[in-house]
Amino acid sequence: MTHKIELRVRYEETDRMGVVYYGNYLVWFEIARTEFFRALGILYRELEEKDGLRLMVAQAECVYRSPATYDDVVTVQTDISEIKNSSLSFSYKVFCGARLLAAGKTSHVFTNKEGRPVRIPDGVRKAISSA
Amino acid sequence: MTHKIELRVRYEETDRMGVVYYGNYLVWFEIARTEFFRALGILYRELEEKDGLRLMVAQAECVYRSPATYDDVVTVQTDISEIKNSSLSFSYKVFCGARLLAAGKTSHVFTNKEGRPVRIPDGVRKAISSA
Amino acid sequence: MTHKIELRVRYEETDRMGVVYYGNYLVWFEIARTEFFRALGILYRELEEKDGLRLMVAQAECVYRSPATYDDVVTVQTDISEIKNSSLSFSYKVFCGARLLAAGKTSHVFTNKEGRPVRIPDGVRKAISSA
Amino acid sequence: MTHKIELRVRYEETDRMGVVYYGNYLVWFEIARTEFFRALGILYRELEEKDGLRLMVAQAECVYRSPATYDDVVTVQTDISEIKNSSLSFSYKVFCGARLLAAGKTSHVFTNKEGRPVRIPDGVRKAISSA
Repeated sequence: MTHKIELRVRYEETDRMGVVYYGNYLVWFEIARTEFFRALGILYRELEEKDGLRLMVAQAECVYRSPATYDDVVTVQTDISEIKNSSLSFSYKVFCGARLLAAGKTSHVFTNKEGRPVRIPDGVRKAISSA
Repeated sequence: MTHKIELRVRYEETDRMGVVYYGNYLVWFEIARTEFFRALGILYRELEEKDGLRLMVAQAECVYRSPATYDDVVTVQTDISEIKNSSLSFSYKVFCGARLLAAGKTSHVFTNKEGRPVRIPDGVRKAISSA
Repeated sequence: MTHKIELRVRYEETDRMGVVYYGNYLVWFEIARTEFFRALGILYRELEEKDGLRLMVAQAECVYRSPATYDDVVTVQTDISEIKNSSLSFSYKVFCGARLLAAGKTSHVFTNKEGRPVRIPDGVRKAISSA
Repeated sequence: MTHKIELRVRYEETDRMGVVYYGNYLVWFEIARTEFFRALGILYRELEEKDGLRLMVAQAECVYRSPATYDDVVTVQTDISEIKNSSLSFSYKVFCGARLLAAGKTSHVFTNKEGRPVRIPDGVRKAISSA
């Protein structure tokens, strides 16, 4: 499943080079993950609050191709690129219209509150598989 | 007691107007509060972690006079402007050299973890009074 | 005219108190201004890029009533509270459902690129007056 | 040359998981680059303002090992890992005491204001080589 969200660039997200600050793409990836889960019927917030789980970030990367600036509408396209016992990876592409701005990947581990890796919950695994 | 800290402006803190984004002054005020307490021998972190307290923000304001940009070294000058049973207020002045950039104020309430107001701890009150 | 926008709280906007960091309300106010103008048919981006104008922030304040956390949907309700020759003020109320989270105000001056105050453009003034 | 800076974690940099938000490591890398250059006698700000250059980010990555939280003092250790005609790469290690928090890398291209790649200035190249 490829999931898409649209975001409008905030003034705060730009820097004095006139473009979106590079760290903010990781913020957009985070929003994309939340909405990816929501599209599968999973509320990440409830995984935290009800199930005491955490989706820790183990790795993040981003290749920057073209800049975005204030008031641009960008699309973040998200896929699951890997799923294992307790870990999963997302890949992202960020577009402004047809122009590719950036491509990235984040890897995560499901843990309990104490930070110990746990099996990905069956509900999450099934929702992802059937997507 | 007037307490001073120095900060160097981060690239990330600027926006496409070329200057520090207005919301970041509130971040600087937060750092100034932490260091104000530290100068009094109080670790705000321990108030949270050991004493289960929270210093909630009730109000914040800032008047902007002159902009700062990347790599500027700014000074934040902090005072306690009011102290009551469970609340206290800080006032701030931000300078770049002799140039006044901004002046602000934040008001806070000490609460427990559940968000209920509590008396300011005696240790904190004494440290502030004797300063 | 009262204008409303909805925002979903980003994980990044929370802090270790579990709630939205106080400085982020100023970011939401900024988004609300952009969308307020858009609703009047004014693109603030074009005021900057085509007309060489800047809407400098002269003052900002916020009273915090109740916290928001990750994944909450908040509404920011925006009004123009004052308009003069070269300055104007916005007032804001932030809600989560019926619960008032915060109320704020920002004051601004229209300037040219060099930071010199200029008359509010007629188009902007008319759009605001007729709203 | 390995260059080290120390940073104290800001409250704003934490998220509701109680730890530093993953995107903020890229902010710390940016500060580390500025200070790396300064240690070589190069003011990145002047490269922008006097020489009209930009150090665009082409790629960024970070592996997260262990979390940091508010008020921790972290050390960012920076090296140049590659230097070519118009591009260069930095590698970073972030520690809290002896504990490795994260390791990352960023790749950059020197461009002019229009975003066209340019040769790394001789002064920068020499300063890096002799370091």
